[in-house]
Amino acid sequence: MQSKRIGYSTLCFQNPPSVIGFASVVGKKEGEGPLAGYFDYINNDTSFGEKTWEKAESRMQKDALTIASNKANQPISAIQYIFAGDLINQCISSSFAIREFKIPFFGLYGACSTMAEGLGLAAMTIDGGYAALAAVLTSSHFCSAERQYRTPLEYGAQRAPTAQWTVTGSGCVLLSDNGPGPYITHFTAGKIIDLGITDTNNMGAAMAPAAHSTLLAFFQDTNTQPSDYDLIVTGDLGKVGHAIVTDLLRDDGIQFCGNFNDCGLMIYDLEKQDVHAGGSGCGCSAVVLCSKIIKDMQAGILNKVLFAGTGALHSPVSAQQGESVPGICHAVCLSSKKQ
Amino acid sequence: MQSKRIGYSTLCFQNPPSVIGFASVVGKKEGEGPLAGYFDYINNDTSFGEKTWEKAESRMQKDALTIASNKANQPISAIQYIFAGDLINQCISSSFAIREFKIPFFGLYGACSTMAEGLGLAAMTIDGGYAALAAVLTSSHFCSAERQYRTPLEYGAQRAPTAQWTVTGSGCVLLSDNGPGPYITHFTAGKIIDLGITDTNNMGAAMAPAAHSTLLAFFQDTNTQPSDYDLIVTGDLGKVGHAIVTDLLRDDGIQFCGNFNDCGLMIYDLEKQDVHAGGSGCGCSAVVLCSKIIKDMQAGILNKVLFAGTGALHSPVSAQQGESVPGICHAVCLSSKKQ
Repeated sequence: MQSKRIGYSTLCFQNPPSVIGFASVVGKKEGEGPLAGYFDYINNDTSFGEKTWEKAESRMQKDALTIASNKANQPISAIQYIFAGDLINQCISSSFAIREFKIPFFGLYGACSTMAEGLGLAAMTIDGGYAALAAVLTSSHFCSAERQYRTPLEYGAQRAPTAQWTVTGSGCVLLSDNGPGPYITHFTAGKIIDLGITDTNNMGAAMAPAAHSTLLAFFQDTNTQPSDYDLIVTGDLGKVGHAIVTDLLRDDGIQFCGNFNDCGLMIYDLEKQDVHAGGSGCGCSAVVLCSKIIKDMQAGILNKVLFAGTGALHSPVSAQQGESVPGICHAVCLSSKKQ
Repeated sequence: MQSKRIGYSTLCFQNPPSVIGFASVVGKKEGEGPLAGYFDYINNDTSFGEKTWEKAESRMQKDALTIASNKANQPISAIQYIFAGDLINQCISSSFAIREFKIPFFGLYGACSTMAEGLGLAAMTIDGGYAALAAVLTSSHFCSAERQYRTPLEYGAQRAPTAQWTVTGSGCVLLSDNGPGPYITHFTAGKIIDLGITDTNNMGAAMAPAAHSTLLAFFQDTNTQPSDYDLIVTGDLGKVGHAIVTDLLRDDGIQFCGNFNDCGLMIYDLEKQDVHAGGSGCGCSAVVLCSKIIKDMQAGILNKVLFAGTGALHSPVSAQQGESVPGICHAVCLSSKKQ
């Protein structure tokens, strides 16, 4: 069989899957940010009507899946695979969201890179002829993440300047073998990179080397440069990590031309919303992709986007045991054309 | 493109990937069980020389990956994707095991079904032409699982008769687009099934309906029956779940002919080893597959095996919040021939 790989680690799809549905569901704070007008559903009740934060997260995922399916004019039962995961221990936000739908399910754990990881796997599944319709779904919730990773909310701990704010939100993408685009044309799966950052309040610095590694691999494998893209967007490095990646790539001779952004910088107004270094969480890159980015692609404002999801593959236990924070980054190329 | 799906949810691979390497690494208790002679590496020091149980689990994964690569005569650097996951929060056993190898990595969360989930995804990746060599890796450790899911080890809690014993072990399979077999010929991804079991000391009963659903789908989609297989093996339902699935399938008119077993029943001597209902954990089905099952296939003792990995997609938090235990089962068909 003809290889679908180009370069060392990038896939080039021969039948690029099309986005045919997408949805973003967010909480109050995200609804007060600069992307407010792009979200499908903003709920000012952060509990989403549920009794616990974890159940609120599952509720957001159910809502995102339902809205995306409605927008695609597809019944949920037509989805042949769901790829989903989240930050909560044992990914319960996803499994409890999905259990009622009776759709074959692949559970993922990619931390904040989950949307990109899922898009890559779902694109392979559709391009390869294993499914005609697949969903990618993820979420995060400030309250469930904060108490699991950091301190009880009631404790009111002071936040470090490098800390990022976990987005309350869920994003869902429906990919089909047939549709008007945008299309997923390329995918570069990331390697784990760990340069020894042990400060769990500085995820941006911990994940930046992984973003650097994957972006460099992508540009080399595809023989392209930043100016070939309307937008190159990481998710979610925040202010600190974004600056580090810019520096690291500049050292490699790769310069951006004002087209490099980060989902963690896009979702909040960093000056006014008291989020320190920006947004984070599986939901952050997912809802930014499933709102402004895809809508701008559909409107012809953006034609070629490189979406590079980043994740920190640590846990409170690994930090307590003195370990550093391994990072990963998966890059997905979206294009309004099939190439 | 021609669909590679048969029936509702089963994939039939046109270029079935071959197992070219596999390894099983286990602890002391597993090394005292009936499969002792089949394991690649038994370490009687359950810490595997590491300072924490979580690091011991990562060490087992590194050893399993290294042994599998050596047995396949492949450098680890030739592996194009690793699919891995485990039970520990945020899957740190996998990410800390894999970080030094610099191989593109897909993090999975399928609880005890992780080996089957990974084999399905890796098989699609190779059959589809996206990679020539991929690894599937998972692990569990009695001590890390017990303290995370149940009680501190020092507490010495009494175990319920339906409880299963988490296997200390790691299994690794290397799949290639070219090899002597056994081959992965079919794959059925599972749906989440939750019939309302809330007893977290009875995982077998919680997962049995998912195993029933996937096995039924597989037999219907492939138009085969149990007598077409030398072995049908779930992993890990234990004594309770295995009996329930047997009953449920009998009600559907599907009868086994002495060829239905369970990895949780195979790995320990239930009478002598005080493990109550049997073994469990991501490592259980992984090391049983990567020892007796594949070795018996290579020796011609087994020619066609249906390997159905089962997982319980709950967490201590979901249990504390009154939730029941969702189950999932992914089925992989292995054959000594390409069909």
